[in-house]
Amino acid sequence: MDVQMGKQSLQFAEAPYIVSSANIVGTKEGEGPLGNCFDVVGEDDKFGQNTWEEAESTLQKEAFTMAVGRAGLKPEDIRYLFSGDLLGQNIATSFGLMDAQVPLFGLYGACSTCGEALSLGAMCVAAGYAEYVVSMTSSHFASAEKQFRFPLEYANQRPLSATWTVTGSGAYVLGKKRSKARITGITTGKIVDYGIKDSMNMGAAMAPAAADTICRNLMDFERKPEDYDKIITGDLGTVGQEILFDLARQKGYDISAVHEDCGILIYDGKKQGTGAGGSGCGCSAVTLSAHFLKQVEDARLKRILFVPTGALLSTVSFNEGKPVPGIAHAVVIEHAS
Amino acid sequence: MDVQMGKQSLQFAEAPYIVSSANIVGTKEGEGPLGNCFDVVGEDDKFGQNTWEEAESTLQKEAFTMAVGRAGLKPEDIRYLFSGDLLGQNIATSFGLMDAQVPLFGLYGACSTCGEALSLGAMCVAAGYAEYVVSMTSSHFASAEKQFRFPLEYANQRPLSATWTVTGSGAYVLGKKRSKARITGITTGKIVDYGIKDSMNMGAAMAPAAADTICRNLMDFERKPEDYDKIITGDLGTVGQEILFDLARQKGYDISAVHEDCGILIYDGKKQGTGAGGSGCGCSAVTLSAHFLKQVEDARLKRILFVPTGALLSTVSFNEGKPVPGIAHAVVIEHAS
Repeated sequence: MDVQMGKQSLQFAEAPYIVSSANIVGTKEGEGPLGNCFDVVGEDDKFGQNTWEEAESTLQKEAFTMAVGRAGLKPEDIRYLFSGDLLGQNIATSFGLMDAQVPLFGLYGACSTCGEALSLGAMCVAAGYAEYVVSMTSSHFASAEKQFRFPLEYANQRPLSATWTVTGSGAYVLGKKRSKARITGITTGKIVDYGIKDSMNMGAAMAPAAADTICRNLMDFERKPEDYDKIITGDLGTVGQEILFDLARQKGYDISAVHEDCGILIYDGKKQGTGAGGSGCGCSAVTLSAHFLKQVEDARLKRILFVPTGALLSTVSFNEGKPVPGIAHAVVIEHAS
Repeated sequence: MDVQMGKQSLQFAEAPYIVSSANIVGTKEGEGPLGNCFDVVGEDDKFGQNTWEEAESTLQKEAFTMAVGRAGLKPEDIRYLFSGDLLGQNIATSFGLMDAQVPLFGLYGACSTCGEALSLGAMCVAAGYAEYVVSMTSSHFASAEKQFRFPLEYANQRPLSATWTVTGSGAYVLGKKRSKARITGITTGKIVDYGIKDSMNMGAAMAPAAADTICRNLMDFERKPEDYDKIITGDLGTVGQEILFDLARQKGYDISAVHEDCGILIYDGKKQGTGAGGSGCGCSAVTLSAHFLKQVEDARLKRILFVPTGALLSTVSFNEGKPVPGIAHAVVIEHAS
């Protein structure tokens, strides 16, 4: 069997297993619809640290430690770490994972990072480069607001199309050791730019990339949308979801019956005032671990397509009038018996 | 032959070839000791653009186009792009490579990014995931000063230990197609923190990581320093080089006879006022392409260890009093006949 499928996808002959996963979130995520599913809900969003950045680093440290421990492993059993975050120069990752002392591939895929990390981790294990790797990512509401918008103290107003950055980190141990879920394929995304310039409407910026990667996956694997029990985007929110459906239909696919979005699931938008939904690298990372992966493991879901979506901007690019292009990386996860 | 060597290294059974490379630099690099070696020297560091960030994006676009063209390929022949830069949220990469329409793995390894990109690209080709990939990176003096220190208009003074960010981009097409150089192995670095807090002394911050990765490579492959014709760090500069020699000696290796540093080579520090040397992702990327790779291709160098070094900080981490940890990724490049 050839590993290269179509133009942008890989199918693994020896599909790596998701040996374990772990997730940790903040108070607001704990109060949301998935509140009971998370491994750890922080009592205070600073997680005992002095700064928001240190708090986010702590999320990564805790998620890594939990995931590795659950797999019955020690940090020295992990051959590679694939991780990244939203902050400039990936500082949540660097300072969060420094103590792990595991060779690190630092990634930046904006909110698509969980898909990128799982893709590279799976490629690495499937090629025999490692017995175990950890793929992970994080985001934090307060460090992201400081990075991209305004410090919290400024108390600025937000349009309804704006999303709410999830405070959380999800970590995945991938390896050859058998488990109930495995990554059977990936579709790696290209940058897709529709010229959206509104940084308060990330869903619209990312939907074209999600549509591109999802439809490419269906073409490369010669599948129909219903060949997946769920097609799960990262953080399009309610505004982006509608655009995704339209764009996919234009490409000949109706995915509305099987689509879910982690950003829509994680908060109760009306009660929690979170606008169009959750966002941030952590959004899809914790929702997969806490919610969907369990359903794959117990065979309620046989095959899912997990598609974290990222908006490629910085305050500098935004202020210089550049558009907000998107990218999305898809991972095929199947129940293993 | 087992691909996993020792604790942190891989040796490729079917080593991928460096099919082609290309480099482009700014005026100051063109006036330096390697000035005659570069493919393109810009006449003006804005490269026809309105902003420094767009200028850096243009560097990536040009380097990508040249490298792919030289390999006799088109962008659609490239299955994956591995790239990153120093700017917050990798904007030089996103806006520079958007038009290539190649599936992208965005990376962040600070100035070690060229080593990280070549490592992941080589892993990808060696595993049969792609016929061709492009591994690349960039930096720009003016966009980096704006990002990390002061806008140029501020005209601040710089200590002698400070390095000078290279304006340049280097791109490499890796593939199965035979050429005169191949990547036979890699050693992936861990984060190493010696508690250095001086962001104007990056050489000292990165030297411990360079020593760690180089000595780990020698241990994993059971080699002596003289088994390499050159051991080439990215941008330690003169201050970092001395620390590297000391730390390597403490680990039992004297690498002084074979060591070179791209940051020392690229400028004439006394004439050009560049302090301790060149730095930035672009420094090692253009020096390998313009200077060392040619010597490997014509067998003046049979085997080199290329070790780009990165300092993991942001203005936020620095202002919050965090240290500047380092990371270094090593790539073994050998002449192929």
